[in-house]
Amino acid sequence: MRNSRRGAVDPFIVMDVMEAARQAEEAGRHIIHMEVGQPGTPAPQAARDALARAMQSDPLGYTVALGLPALRQRISRLYGEWYGVDLDPRRVVVTPGSSGGFILAFTAFLDGGDRVALGAPGYPSYRQILRALDLVPVEVQSSAGNRLQPVPDDLTALDWQGLMVASPANPTGTMLDRAALAALIGSAQDRGAAFFSDEIYHGIEYEAKAVSALQISDDVCVINSFSKYFSMTGWRVGWLVVPEANIRQIERLAQNLFICAPHAAQVAALAAMDATEELQANMAVYARNRALMMEGLPKAGFDRLAPPDGAFYVYADVSHLTDDSRAFAAEILEHAGVAVTPGLDFDPERGAGTLRFSYARATADIEEGLARLAAFMAARG
Amino acid sequence: MRNSRRGAVDPFIVMDVMEAARQAEEAGRHIIHMEVGQPGTPAPQAARDALARAMQSDPLGYTVALGLPALRQRISRLYGEWYGVDLDPRRVVVTPGSSGGFILAFTAFLDGGDRVALGAPGYPSYRQILRALDLVPVEVQSSAGNRLQPVPDDLTALDWQGLMVASPANPTGTMLDRAALAALIGSAQDRGAAFFSDEIYHGIEYEAKAVSALQISDDVCVINSFSKYFSMTGWRVGWLVVPEANIRQIERLAQNLFICAPHAAQVAALAAMDATEELQANMAVYARNRALMMEGLPKAGFDRLAPPDGAFYVYADVSHLTDDSRAFAAEILEHAGVAVTPGLDFDPERGAGTLRFSYARATADIEEGLARLAAFMAARG
Repeated sequence: MRNSRRGAVDPFIVMDVMEAARQAEEAGRHIIHMEVGQPGTPAPQAARDALARAMQSDPLGYTVALGLPALRQRISRLYGEWYGVDLDPRRVVVTPGSSGGFILAFTAFLDGGDRVALGAPGYPSYRQILRALDLVPVEVQSSAGNRLQPVPDDLTALDWQGLMVASPANPTGTMLDRAALAALIGSAQDRGAAFFSDEIYHGIEYEAKAVSALQISDDVCVINSFSKYFSMTGWRVGWLVVPEANIRQIERLAQNLFICAPHAAQVAALAAMDATEELQANMAVYARNRALMMEGLPKAGFDRLAPPDGAFYVYADVSHLTDDSRAFAAEILEHAGVAVTPGLDFDPERGAGTLRFSYARATADIEEGLARLAAFMAARG
Repeated sequence: MRNSRRGAVDPFIVMDVMEAARQAEEAGRHIIHMEVGQPGTPAPQAARDALARAMQSDPLGYTVALGLPALRQRISRLYGEWYGVDLDPRRVVVTPGSSGGFILAFTAFLDGGDRVALGAPGYPSYRQILRALDLVPVEVQSSAGNRLQPVPDDLTALDWQGLMVASPANPTGTMLDRAALAALIGSAQDRGAAFFSDEIYHGIEYEAKAVSALQISDDVCVINSFSKYFSMTGWRVGWLVVPEANIRQIERLAQNLFICAPHAAQVAALAAMDATEELQANMAVYARNRALMMEGLPKAGFDRLAPPDGAFYVYADVSHLTDDSRAFAAEILEHAGVAVTPGLDFDPERGAGTLRFSYARATADIEEGLARLAAFMAARG
C-alpha cells in the first residue's frame, strides 16, 4: 500500500550504531554500551512483587482511561514531596509511557498545521511525533552560552502555537532554573500558545533539584514518565499533568486513543513510588558514574563539555576532532569497542560535530569504557 | 490552555451507563454487567507464570520497536495454524494494543485530510481516532439485509482514501465471508486506497472460522490484539500485519511514536499463545452464553436480532420498543439491575433504536441477567 507523506520520519542514526554493536557482539567482541538511553536496572523489587501479587487475584482488565485512582493520588502527592506543590489528583493523567503522553498532549492542545517551537539539540522523537501528527516542528538553535537551552530571545521572531522544553534535557543534561523556565512559560502564555514541559528526567539530578513548570504556573502541560528515575522503561507508563479546564477533552481522547495505560505497569508503578531506598541506590550509581565521566572524558581528550545538571548523559563538542560524528562513532566502536551516539539525531545541523555519552549502566562498565576511550584517543594521537 | 478542535471527540455514551451502574453498586444494589466489552477472565495462567519468571531474571527494558523477535515469529506461525497462510514474521509489528495499532496504521498510510470509509454501526473509537489524527471518517449506513456490514455498492459514489472493516464486528458480531471481504478489498485496491481489516475478535467465532484479509491479499493492513481471544485486555498488546514495502516506514514511526509495546505484556502474550486449553475453556463459556442469549433474549421480548457469528455481543433492534435507547438503557438499569449499552455510540443516526448486550462474563451472570430482563419486560407489558 502507499506510504503516507507524514509518516516519512527520519531514521534514528543511533540505530545504526546499535546494530553495528550487536553485530560486533555476535562476532564475539565485548562492547561497552554508552549509546543506550535507559537504566540497566529493573523495576524496583517492590514494584515487581506488587505485580506478582496482583496477577494472582486481579484479572487486570482495562482501567479507567485516566488511570488507577490510587496511582493518580500517589503521583499528585509526589508534587508535594518533590516541589511543595499542592496538586489536584484529577489533573493527573496516566499515559502509556511519555510517548503516549506526547501523542495525547499534542492532539489535545494543537490542530493540524500548528507550529511547535523546540530547541536543538533535543530528543529526536519530538520532531518525528509532531510530523506524524501533522504538526510543524520549529527548531531553534540554542547556544552554548545558554547551555544549549532555548531562551525567549530565540523565539520572539518566530511563528509558533506551542513550545516544548525539557529540563534536564536529553542529550545535554542541562536544566532550566526557575527564572529561565518562567521566562519561557511567559513567552508561550503571552501569545496564547500551549506550553509543554518534558520532565521525564526529574529525580535524576546532581547539584540542585529540577524545577517543575507547575511551580510556576497551572496553565501548562507537564509530561513525565516512570522510565528513568523509577527505572521502568519497558513498562510503558508515564503521566501528564494538565490544566483543570482541559481534563474532559483529555479524558475523551485518552479513552479513544489508548483505552488505558497498561494495567500491570500501573500496579508496578504505584509500588515503585515508595521504593525510595532502591531508587536512591540507583541514583548513587549515576552520581558516581557522572563523577567518573567528568574526570575521565577530559583526560581522554573529550574536554569540550558542560557538567550535566541531571539525566545520565554527557554531550561533548567534538568539532575539533571530526566533522562527521557518524563516522567518528563508527571508528570508536570499531577501535575502542565503545558504542556512543553521534549528535545528528539530536541536532541535524550541528550534530556532525557532537557525541552523546550515556552513563546509565553499571559503574564497572563506565570505568572500562573510559579506559578504552583514553587508549583509543591516545593511539589516535 | 486552549483545547484543540480535532481533540473535541464525542463522549462515550456507555460511560454514563457505567457510571450509573457504579453508583448503583455503591448504593448497595447488585448489577449484572452486559455493557462491558471485555472478558472477565485474566490472562492465561501460563502467561502470568512466564511474566513472573521473567521479572526475576530480565530487567524488561525497551524491546526493539517492532517487538520481541520470538513473539513476531509466534504470531506469524498463528497465521499458518488458523488460516493456512505462510506469513513472513518481518511483516508482523507488535503494538501497544490495537489502539496503538490504529494510530500507527493511520499515520503510516494516510495523510491529514484523507477520508476513511467505515460502516455504521461500528466501533466508535474508529471515528474518534481518525478525527484526532486529522482524518475524515466517512460513515456508511450498512443495511440489515447485509447483516450490518458494508458492501461495495455502499461505497462506490463516495470519496475515500482508506477503508476500515471489522469481521467479526463490534457491536453486531457479524462476519464477512470470503467473497464479501474480497469484494471490499477489491474496491479499495481499485482506487488505490488503503485497506484496514480489524480482526481483533478472530478466534471468538461459533459456526465458521473468520476469514483473514491476508487469505485474500498481501496488500492490506491487518489489526489484531491479545485483548479478546487471548483474554489480555488491560495488558495493551496487539499487532499489525503490513505489506513488506511498508515495513521500514512503520518501523521508524513505531520507534518514535511508542518506542515499543510493553515488554512485560509481550512476554505474557508469547506464553498466552500456547495456552490453548485455557483459552478453549473460555471459548466454551462464550458459546454457552451465546446459546443462552439466543434463547433468552427473544423470550424476554428482544426478538429482532441476528445470531452473532463471532465476538461476544448481541445487537438488538429495539426501535419498536423505544425511540430513545439511552433512556431505555437507563430504565433497564434502574428497574432490572442490568447494565446494557445504547446503540448511539456505534451508530449516531440509527442507534437511538438499538441496544448492545455483551455476554463476555460468567454464565451465571448471563442467566441471572436474562431472568431479570424477562421479568422487566413482562412488567413493562
